[in-house]
Amino acid sequence: MKLYNYFRSGTSFRVRIALNLKGLSYDYVPVHLAKGEQHGAAYRALSPDSLVPLLDVEGDPDHALLSQSMAIIEYLDETHPEPPLMPRDPLGRARVRALAQTVACEIHPLNNLRVLKYLAGPLGLDEAQRTTWYNHWVREGLRHYERRLQQLAEERARAGLPPSIYSYGDTPTLADCCLVPQIVNGQRFGLRVEDLDVPLTLAVYERCMALDAFQRAHPARCPDAE
Amino acid sequence: MKLYNYFRSGTSFRVRIALNLKGLSYDYVPVHLAKGEQHGAAYRALSPDSLVPLLDVEGDPDHALLSQSMAIIEYLDETHPEPPLMPRDPLGRARVRALAQTVACEIHPLNNLRVLKYLAGPLGLDEAQRTTWYNHWVREGLRHYERRLQQLAEERARAGLPPSIYSYGDTPTLADCCLVPQIVNGQRFGLRVEDLDVPLTLAVYERCMALDAFQRAHPARCPDAE
Repeated sequence: MKLYNYFRSGTSFRVRIALNLKGLSYDYVPVHLAKGEQHGAAYRALSPDSLVPLLDVEGDPDHALLSQSMAIIEYLDETHPEPPLMPRDPLGRARVRALAQTVACEIHPLNNLRVLKYLAGPLGLDEAQRTTWYNHWVREGLRHYERRLQQLAEERARAGLPPSIYSYGDTPTLADCCLVPQIVNGQRFGLRVEDLDVPLTLAVYERCMALDAFQRAHPARCPDAE
Repeated sequence: MKLYNYFRSGTSFRVRIALNLKGLSYDYVPVHLAKGEQHGAAYRALSPDSLVPLLDVEGDPDHALLSQSMAIIEYLDETHPEPPLMPRDPLGRARVRALAQTVACEIHPLNNLRVLKYLAGPLGLDEAQRTTWYNHWVREGLRHYERRLQQLAEERARAGLPPSIYSYGDTPTLADCCLVPQIVNGQRFGLRVEDLDVPLTLAVYERCMALDAFQRAHPARCPDAE
């Protein structure tokens, strides 16, 4: 497999984690977003929306180019089932997807590079205003994530189950693949999850970051890291 | 089942379509977002993030409150398999999810009520600036959607298959549940899909809107419509 991605892209980071958790090796193809390489003719011929990540599953029965990080991760999970990144039961899957989408639909889209560029360009916001914007949505979104974890912890307690180790259950899932990059990305904007009063989320983050699969996917460890 | 939702909420609209396509009846519980009812104590006790939609699957083996529209729709599809809203093969599912996420992660999050309020409040943008913002992201996102449809059409042509009728294949999927509300929502901001040079997307929209399941889910047909 080939992963077209960028070290600082949070959505690329999600897929790198999933590939590592699955033990799948891949060729790392850097696409320099800050230099605009995604808009070049070569990349546009591959990617319909000039976005990263893009996974070329060349070794699979479906030779295809896949985009959208959550869709890619579920594809990897369906085609390489072990270790699972999704629960087996529909309710568990709904819970994990809702957690993942709390990051992927409530936080990340507001804070990615092209939105920050629009705020700086057409809207003329200065750096302080952009940082306030960024932090506002991360803070609000991670508080929602925390409340979800609280609600799930209460459900488990009522069912007589021990607390989850990761976002949902005892192994990392799609939810953790989305959560960790968002927190790491926030650090670049001076946002420390330690200061947000989200203790369950912080604990999950720390347990994930103790795992080799998450560490190796970190932007600082990427071949194109600056 | 009970659906906590709001007539104008695009994510609520997605779930109403899916429930209709599945032939599932539900109690419509309105939550008036513009009046802030989602922040009241009663709703916050149910919803960890004060967002709609929220589905109470009271009749199901899992009695649970589900949030995040795409997660809800996949849950409905897994627990009520006919008619399917997702393809059976992993590649097909990845394609449909990527289309759905093009709307749900690239367009909608930038344009929902709380973002527009932040633009008006803390950032002090006037109505014209907000409309420009709104239209910019819808236009860009729907062009990405169109390019995905083009790419899929080329894949089908190479495989000797006839063109898709809906976004993916011959029956409506999760992708259509996400696409149609985004286009309908845009109409409130004066955005006509007819003017965007996205012919495949427009044709899918029109075929969906010819179906009773989509028509009955329309904001104008909701009990709380104003």
